[in-house]
Amino acid sequence: MKHEKGIVLGEGAGGEMMQRMLSSLVLPHIRKGTIGDGGLPPELLDDSAAIGDIALTIDGHTVWPLEFPGGDIGKLSVYGTVNDLAVVGARPMALALSLIVEEGLDRELLVRLSRSIGAASESCGVQVITGDTKVVERGGVRGLVVTTAGVGRRHELLDGCIARAMERREGNLRWDQRWLRDDAVRPGDHIILSGSVGDHGIAVLSFREGYGYETEVCSDMAPLNALMESAMRVGGVVGAKDLTRGGLANALNEWASKSGFGIRVRDVDIPVKEPVRSACDMLGLDPYEIGNEGKLILGVVDGMEEEVLKAVRRTPEGRDAVLIGRVVGDRKEVVLETEVGGMRIMDPPYGDPVPRIC
Amino acid sequence: MKHEKGIVLGEGAGGEMMQRMLSSLVLPHIRKGTIGDGGLPPELLDDSAAIGDIALTIDGHTVWPLEFPGGDIGKLSVYGTVNDLAVVGARPMALALSLIVEEGLDRELLVRLSRSIGAASESCGVQVITGDTKVVERGGVRGLVVTTAGVGRRHELLDGCIARAMERREGNLRWDQRWLRDDAVRPGDHIILSGSVGDHGIAVLSFREGYGYETEVCSDMAPLNALMESAMRVGGVVGAKDLTRGGLANALNEWASKSGFGIRVRDVDIPVKEPVRSACDMLGLDPYEIGNEGKLILGVVDGMEEEVLKAVRRTPEGRDAVLIGRVVGDRKEVVLETEVGGMRIMDPPYGDPVPRIC
Repeated sequence: MKHEKGIVLGEGAGGEMMQRMLSSLVLPHIRKGTIGDGGLPPELLDDSAAIGDIALTIDGHTVWPLEFPGGDIGKLSVYGTVNDLAVVGARPMALALSLIVEEGLDRELLVRLSRSIGAASESCGVQVITGDTKVVERGGVRGLVVTTAGVGRRHELLDGCIARAMERREGNLRWDQRWLRDDAVRPGDHIILSGSVGDHGIAVLSFREGYGYETEVCSDMAPLNALMESAMRVGGVVGAKDLTRGGLANALNEWASKSGFGIRVRDVDIPVKEPVRSACDMLGLDPYEIGNEGKLILGVVDGMEEEVLKAVRRTPEGRDAVLIGRVVGDRKEVVLETEVGGMRIMDPPYGDPVPRIC
Repeated sequence: MKHEKGIVLGEGAGGEMMQRMLSSLVLPHIRKGTIGDGGLPPELLDDSAAIGDIALTIDGHTVWPLEFPGGDIGKLSVYGTVNDLAVVGARPMALALSLIVEEGLDRELLVRLSRSIGAASESCGVQVITGDTKVVERGGVRGLVVTTAGVGRRHELLDGCIARAMERREGNLRWDQRWLRDDAVRPGDHIILSGSVGDHGIAVLSFREGYGYETEVCSDMAPLNALMESAMRVGGVVGAKDLTRGGLANALNEWASKSGFGIRVRDVDIPVKEPVRSACDMLGLDPYEIGNEGKLILGVVDGMEEEVLKAVRRTPEGRDAVLIGRVVGDRKEVVLETEVGGMRIMDPPYGDPVPRIC
């Protein structure tokens, strides 16, 4: 395959192109000689990673515009990082915040965004305890880049949650599992989706100049740590993943590829709000490939799925949760069962259908 | 004081303008309601902050150009974060890395920088365990922004180090001190400087287009965790601070302002390399205001300064370390004793003498 000399946009999209770019240009050089000596399983290098009982995560946010229906870059940064910790089974302890400000950024806007960060941090009960600020010349960044890192501790509910999953499984698959992981699902497990897909990406896009459509769609951004606690309290959950870049299609494909098993989901059961569907139709986008910022999938062992679903539905962020399918024993691919009984492969997004939504 | 409507460059310079901007526009809104409930002393919100025995830090790097004599943005990111942890008395545990790449960035350059991150991480014995990558359109950032976060654990040498300091002090000043802190110096303490100042800033500047001078100055970037361990093993150290934006002048003034005491240093004892001095003369810059990336100051109780100095000098990063002055009981300001016996106030830098050096 021929490459451009320079990096192209799609290589930052969270999909297959990005994985290729990272594994050829970045990761082997960074990891060289550093992972291995007391190091960590590379599966955990995706959203959060763990060292002992401490989980660590980082996210750079370049969403444009900085404010959009239902949220802004400040809230997004806080929730994104809290969610990355929550889905591996960590209790978020504290956040660190880096601001890179373009010279000329409106002071009032900076105040609004700071307020938004404060409010978001309060609403999920996690403090911003340290930070760093740089100001660069005009054109050095576009408006504002916010990078957040978070540190969390292995959640006290996690042992019980995983133990209950293992009791249900035949054999002793992954009894050594200490965190919720992308590779932990096994044939027979059920997939719960916490609500409608595509909302965030479409909301951001609708607010951007040059897109000739209007919509009442708001971003679904929300912290998912309370939802995760409800699910873990029931137990039987082996994996959780929030839907961000690349949407549902990307998340399911990562699970299939990392676990080595197939996933089969039912088209008719995946909630897509009507305005999201019509915006996607108009723009030629697939709602399953559009990022959310307040939705996740859960992998739950057979026999506990209804109880977990009930617990998730009792939380505000999971009130529309549904069972969408199961892990199956065949090839590691994601298959979508259509309403009329057909089947099609749900590929991971290749490039970036909606850039700069996070 | 009148303000521009938009943020100006100097407000990101690490000096007094930045402190004002942050305390009026950002910090009160972010902290609101979040610091306080089991929260942390705000003094620790500067470079690293702590929650229990865990220290957390973050740094956004916007240095331009991306490669310069003696280093590059990759090494800088790793060392900067390791140093922020080391100077509060933490043992760095792991790093998280966020890359924001401008579309069109040369692939070979990305590989070189990744290698540099890997080598730097290896040389200080700290792993990059998680990361995030975004690609933005041309003009979205300039080349590459690297943000690193680090997590560390309270160093096992720290209790002994602080205990030995407290034994030497009359009274029981800050017996509750659990970390090395900016506000911990007291009258009588000695200030050790680990080597020459201004090297990094001048090296970066010399490599930038449009500056009509050449110099053989290389950046002094280096990890300071081994140096810190040597000093803590001796004990008697109450504070440590690496010299970054705003240089020595900024670091000393932060100690004076946060501790409430004065600091007196001797001009003749502060090492400035000859080419740094002549570049500063030519450009009208004060070498005490120019950032380093591998130098620090230590506050050491009276009677232990010679022993700590010896230990620091035995490390490669501290071989040129010197005693430069003491903490004094009068007004909280930094006074420079000149060679001819005069005195002048060493103010904190107001704006940014050398932008984008870190």
